[in-house]
Amino acid sequence: MFAEILQRVRDTRPLVHSITNYVTVNDCANILLACGASPIMADDPEEVEEITAGSSGLTLNLGTLHRQRAAAMLAAGRTANRLGRPVVLDPVGVGASRLRGEAAAALLEQVRFAVIRGNGSEIRTLALGQGGERGVDADEADRMETGGLDGAQLWAARLARRTGAVVAVTGVVDVVTDGTRTFRIRNGHPMMSRVTGTGCQLSVVAAAFTAASPGTPLEAAAGAVCAMGVCGELAFARMGPEDGNAAYRGYLMDAMYNLTPEQLEERADYELR
Amino acid sequence: MFAEILQRVRDTRPLVHSITNYVTVNDCANILLACGASPIMADDPEEVEEITAGSSGLTLNLGTLHRQRAAAMLAAGRTANRLGRPVVLDPVGVGASRLRGEAAAALLEQVRFAVIRGNGSEIRTLALGQGGERGVDADEADRMETGGLDGAQLWAARLARRTGAVVAVTGVVDVVTDGTRTFRIRNGHPMMSRVTGTGCQLSVVAAAFTAASPGTPLEAAAGAVCAMGVCGELAFARMGPEDGNAAYRGYLMDAMYNLTPEQLEERADYELR
Amino acid sequence: MFAEILQRVRDTRPLVHSITNYVTVNDCANILLACGASPIMADDPEEVEEITAGSSGLTLNLGTLHRQRAAAMLAAGRTANRLGRPVVLDPVGVGASRLRGEAAAALLEQVRFAVIRGNGSEIRTLALGQGGERGVDADEADRMETGGLDGAQLWAARLARRTGAVVAVTGVVDVVTDGTRTFRIRNGHPMMSRVTGTGCQLSVVAAAFTAASPGTPLEAAAGAVCAMGVCGELAFARMGPEDGNAAYRGYLMDAMYNLTPEQLEERADYELR
Repeated sequence: MFAEILQRVRDTRPLVHSITNYVTVNDCANILLACGASPIMADDPEEVEEITAGSSGLTLNLGTLHRQRAAAMLAAGRTANRLGRPVVLDPVGVGASRLRGEAAAALLEQVRFAVIRGNGSEIRTLALGQGGERGVDADEADRMETGGLDGAQLWAARLARRTGAVVAVTGVVDVVTDGTRTFRIRNGHPMMSRVTGTGCQLSVVAAAFTAASPGTPLEAAAGAVCAMGVCGELAFARMGPEDGNAAYRGYLMDAMYNLTPEQLEERADYELR
Repeated sequence: MFAEILQRVRDTRPLVHSITNYVTVNDCANILLACGASPIMADDPEEVEEITAGSSGLTLNLGTLHRQRAAAMLAAGRTANRLGRPVVLDPVGVGASRLRGEAAAALLEQVRFAVIRGNGSEIRTLALGQGGERGVDADEADRMETGGLDGAQLWAARLARRTGAVVAVTGVVDVVTDGTRTFRIRNGHPMMSRVTGTGCQLSVVAAAFTAASPGTPLEAAAGAVCAMGVCGELAFARMGPEDGNAAYRGYLMDAMYNLTPEQLEERADYELR
Repeated sequence: MFAEILQRVRDTRPLVHSITNYVTVNDCANILLACGASPIMADDPEEVEEITAGSSGLTLNLGTLHRQRAAAMLAAGRTANRLGRPVVLDPVGVGASRLRGEAAAALLEQVRFAVIRGNGSEIRTLALGQGGERGVDADEADRMETGGLDGAQLWAARLARRTGAVVAVTGVVDVVTDGTRTFRIRNGHPMMSRVTGTGCQLSVVAAAFTAASPGTPLEAAAGAVCAMGVCGELAFARMGPEDGNAAYRGYLMDAMYNLTPEQLEERADYELR
């Protein structure tokens, strides 16, 4: 299944518009090229609607957020919704500031997301919502270990049901769910956390995969998670004794560039419940 | 000829001020260092005139454009003109939004460019100009294949004559013309399009070459195009079986770092008409 | 001594908030990960106080400065001071524009810095201060070669005494002083100047080292300078005939990733006066 999804990215070369942070934006552009898609970045509110309209998918990433960029995200997201283009949300550091929390809340209210991709803490923050929403269910969940796999799954499913999005939580084991069906994915390598922006990269790859397979966002998002994880493993296998996170960063991207559909299918390590 | 032009960059180490997008800005800075020049980036309207005044050349790049950055470009461009420093325009995605189109029009009206460097579609957009300018000539040209070499040459020559700039169109074959004399350059490699920002990099290299040889902008721009193309070929020759676009990106910059004037002269593949 | 300082970074993994330029920000994030710390970037005035409050250290870098980012720096710096978190200033290009000069002056007035790290010319500009401050002492110093080691030491000590900060001047020989005690450090390699942002990287590493050893900022800053210098040497030793500044940039970061406390202690080349 994932073989066809990757092949479709290679065949259709979707143009993905990313409104994202300035820390990892270059890697996001290059990983899109590596997986077979094309990048375009633009974040002035005056032009994002046109850029989104010319693209096949959209990623909204809350890193290094600015007020103006938040406004651009709303405009681009609404345009993508109107035109039926899939939108991916990466709620980077959503619990770290009120600015990011409010931006996320506005986005969830006004934009329909195909995929939301974050770490356990970010997804939990979104699932809990703003202010007084913590009900019995939340209190119960609070008692669970946030980083745990069951906690991740609980929060992801809750957010998926609330938003209609596929929710992907990345961690030691990754969870990708539409609230009903859930992939648990065991690909990846701890070294990925020693390179800044591997999560941001995964989010734009998920946008490319979803743009190429808009009818099956759950499988597309799970395929993107598997693909990045497999590349993380392949990259680690290339590490020499003097290599560090800089070499690993390059190997990861090169692995995506050379990843074949067959390789992805064969190495994907997941269960579907 | 190109040997001397490159040598002059190495000897004079021109400081190039770039007002550019935040996607590829780091590669632009490093390729300037690789070719023997020095980078400085600044884009607040309050300081760009001082920064330009202290530099030997200026690049204006429309990627991830903002209103405020567009204002900075006008101020810096006018300062460079007043002080006789060469200015290079890279009209990234100029056809993709009204913001970029208007910014380009304002720049072409208020700033005199030494070099304009873009792909076929961008140069065509600039050559056609805003709104109702499409005359008989334009309609005729519309019938031509935009991506074709003759089309590129036609649009480039037209834009060169209208603006007084040397116009460089990069594609399978690159065209560099001042409206009278034209270089057709066959260096380069398709792999260059799998790394984000190789065009942006070429534009800052063209600024460095032109800053070092301000009296011969046609030769300087053509030399820059040949140099990037030769580096693209040398980089591809280094590719191993596990290498992808990340490795290629590094090899390309390293090739520029190690490029000798003799190597450039010997490998440059062009005809001058 | 430096072995323990590096070990403490690895053990405590300090989160460092950087408000920095968009040219070298990705390398700053990755070098923080390489040395054992964690990066967070945020520069909207609305959120920087919260981000700083959640971090162990703060870096303020004047590259590609904007008015709004300057305001964010003041807010973040005051928050860090209030909470007792060390703040590092990197006055990139402070002499190049009035905007940067005024921002630096406001920061020095309103924020207490643990470390100020710049090149000879930047430190001299800060030491001289704004406008009419040039007294006899300054005139005398003006006669000294700015780039010279004695000049660097004079300006660094003067700035250290005026601000209470440890001042690090990087050059052929690096000077790190608190105004009383001074490290002269001979590690490093000229190739470091062929990669954009090695100075910015040093500044965030200094923030990480100081955050992990807040009681001994002089030793922490000197340790960071030695560590970067040693990595610059190790990186150069890896260079092959086709390698250039791109490969070197990766080797430098990988050297930091693999640097052991013992290696740092053994290779550190300094005298303390």
